[in-house]
Amino acid sequence: MGKRIGFIGLGIMGTPMAGHLAKGGHQIKAYDVFAPARERAAAAGLTVVNSNKEAATDVDVVISMVPDSPHVEAVYLGENGVLEGASKGTLLIDMSSISPITARKVAESATAKGCPMIDAPVSGGDVGAKEARLSIMVGGDEAVFKQAEPILKLMGTPTYCGASGAGQTVKACNQIQVAMNFIGMAEALVLGAKAGVEPEIILKVLSAGYAQTRVMDVRGPRIIKGDYEPGFRASFHYKDLNIIREAARAFGASLPASALAHELFSAMMANGWGNLDHSAVVKVIEKLSNCELPVKE
Amino acid sequence: MGKRIGFIGLGIMGTPMAGHLAKGGHQIKAYDVFAPARERAAAAGLTVVNSNKEAATDVDVVISMVPDSPHVEAVYLGENGVLEGASKGTLLIDMSSISPITARKVAESATAKGCPMIDAPVSGGDVGAKEARLSIMVGGDEAVFKQAEPILKLMGTPTYCGASGAGQTVKACNQIQVAMNFIGMAEALVLGAKAGVEPEIILKVLSAGYAQTRVMDVRGPRIIKGDYEPGFRASFHYKDLNIIREAARAFGASLPASALAHELFSAMMANGWGNLDHSAVVKVIEKLSNCELPVKE
Repeated sequence: MGKRIGFIGLGIMGTPMAGHLAKGGHQIKAYDVFAPARERAAAAGLTVVNSNKEAATDVDVVISMVPDSPHVEAVYLGENGVLEGASKGTLLIDMSSISPITARKVAESATAKGCPMIDAPVSGGDVGAKEARLSIMVGGDEAVFKQAEPILKLMGTPTYCGASGAGQTVKACNQIQVAMNFIGMAEALVLGAKAGVEPEIILKVLSAGYAQTRVMDVRGPRIIKGDYEPGFRASFHYKDLNIIREAARAFGASLPASALAHELFSAMMANGWGNLDHSAVVKVIEKLSNCELPVKE
Repeated sequence: MGKRIGFIGLGIMGTPMAGHLAKGGHQIKAYDVFAPARERAAAAGLTVVNSNKEAATDVDVVISMVPDSPHVEAVYLGENGVLEGASKGTLLIDMSSISPITARKVAESATAKGCPMIDAPVSGGDVGAKEARLSIMVGGDEAVFKQAEPILKLMGTPTYCGASGAGQTVKACNQIQVAMNFIGMAEALVLGAKAGVEPEIILKVLSAGYAQTRVMDVRGPRIIKGDYEPGFRASFHYKDLNIIREAARAFGASLPASALAHELFSAMMANGWGNLDHSAVVKVIEKLSNCELPVKE
């Protein structure tokens, strides 16, 4: 019952995801635009091919996991792309986190060529990818979702979110909330530091009550130690905030706090903090306030 | 071992709090500036007196629970105020949510008169007050905190936060985080609505993952029903955001997201939504975006 799957995008997320599919009994043809990624995948035992088109040729399913909207357009619509290789009826699943607008556009092109396509971005990070515990948000025809579901379940927990682009929209909503949760924690800790209150006390009280957030539970204790090892890189969240602004513009939503979050994450990039965990947005508030949180250990 | 306690402020919070102290074996002299509140308290069996000064005369402890900084100044420092009635050594506990700056100022005046004073604002709302499950954030001398602790425990769980004003600072931090959690949820739901995604789906996915917040767990399902019954009134959170801005200015913290939150809550006041639950900040984002969330039921 194994399917032939073309898997495109062999980064920190895609590599373990493809591995789970192979372990699940599927035959993988793997491709990445970067040669070193292809070599690592080959060394890990995956069958590697040399173009998006080739990955999409003579397969039942194509899955992509690439960085951003332009990459998805190139993978599917570009020269030597998926739509040049895929036969009618090939199921296309883009698991990248991209603009809902781009997701709809690419899915329309795919559908016009007879290939059903869903958007299926994930949250859970590299740990979720390794442990096959990703939260997978799916947009597209529900019948196509049902068809994809057994494959998606090898990588995590899929939730059907609605029509084409809805998976990307829910992912964008997720990233709004996570950003605001981090920024709230950042401003609370900086106000506390300026007033001479220990950050441990603030986290202890807030996390025990109505102010609790999962990001506080997970990253709060690490912020106190000055530990900004990712986790999820600030540069990726900045990309997501760009997507959120693009989506807000396209759908006609006015989102002032998301716009501010975008600017605060822009400051992280300007300060060279893009490779830190997104919790490091507190460093922007520290810099604005000309102070440093007391660091323990 | 019962103490003589003057209790000032017999509103929705103060009345049940005074009740717990009476049940705990203490003798209460209760006062509120509004006659109807005094009459309700008398009808509920509390001994009622006729001024702040009288409530503070011949007692071991004075507790106040009033709306805002100016009320606390009036209660303690004003004519016929607590400091006119209190003897040297009377323990003063202000449980109102006010500016940390005002808390320090009033505590300094009290200390100068020989009355040790702590700030002990709470979170948990009227339900927490009724069930004696308030989270109590305490600032002041630690020895004074220890002295007050058995009394505070009759109303909830006290946490020592640091020097005078630290309780109010932690309460302010709490209100920053809660506001940002609500605003993040609001923008996520409005973006989703504009993109045609069901709010139930957004809440389901977000609350199961890294975006989870306690306010989403508690109020998200009610937002979907269009239920903004408080809970905690937006006008009180607006007051708290005023305190946050005052504290940020006084302590030299630059908090752009809290400033934006202040403006969004200001819009709630401008629209006559101050008596709704603070989760109704989503109505501001709906209005900005010229849309309404789909309401079920």
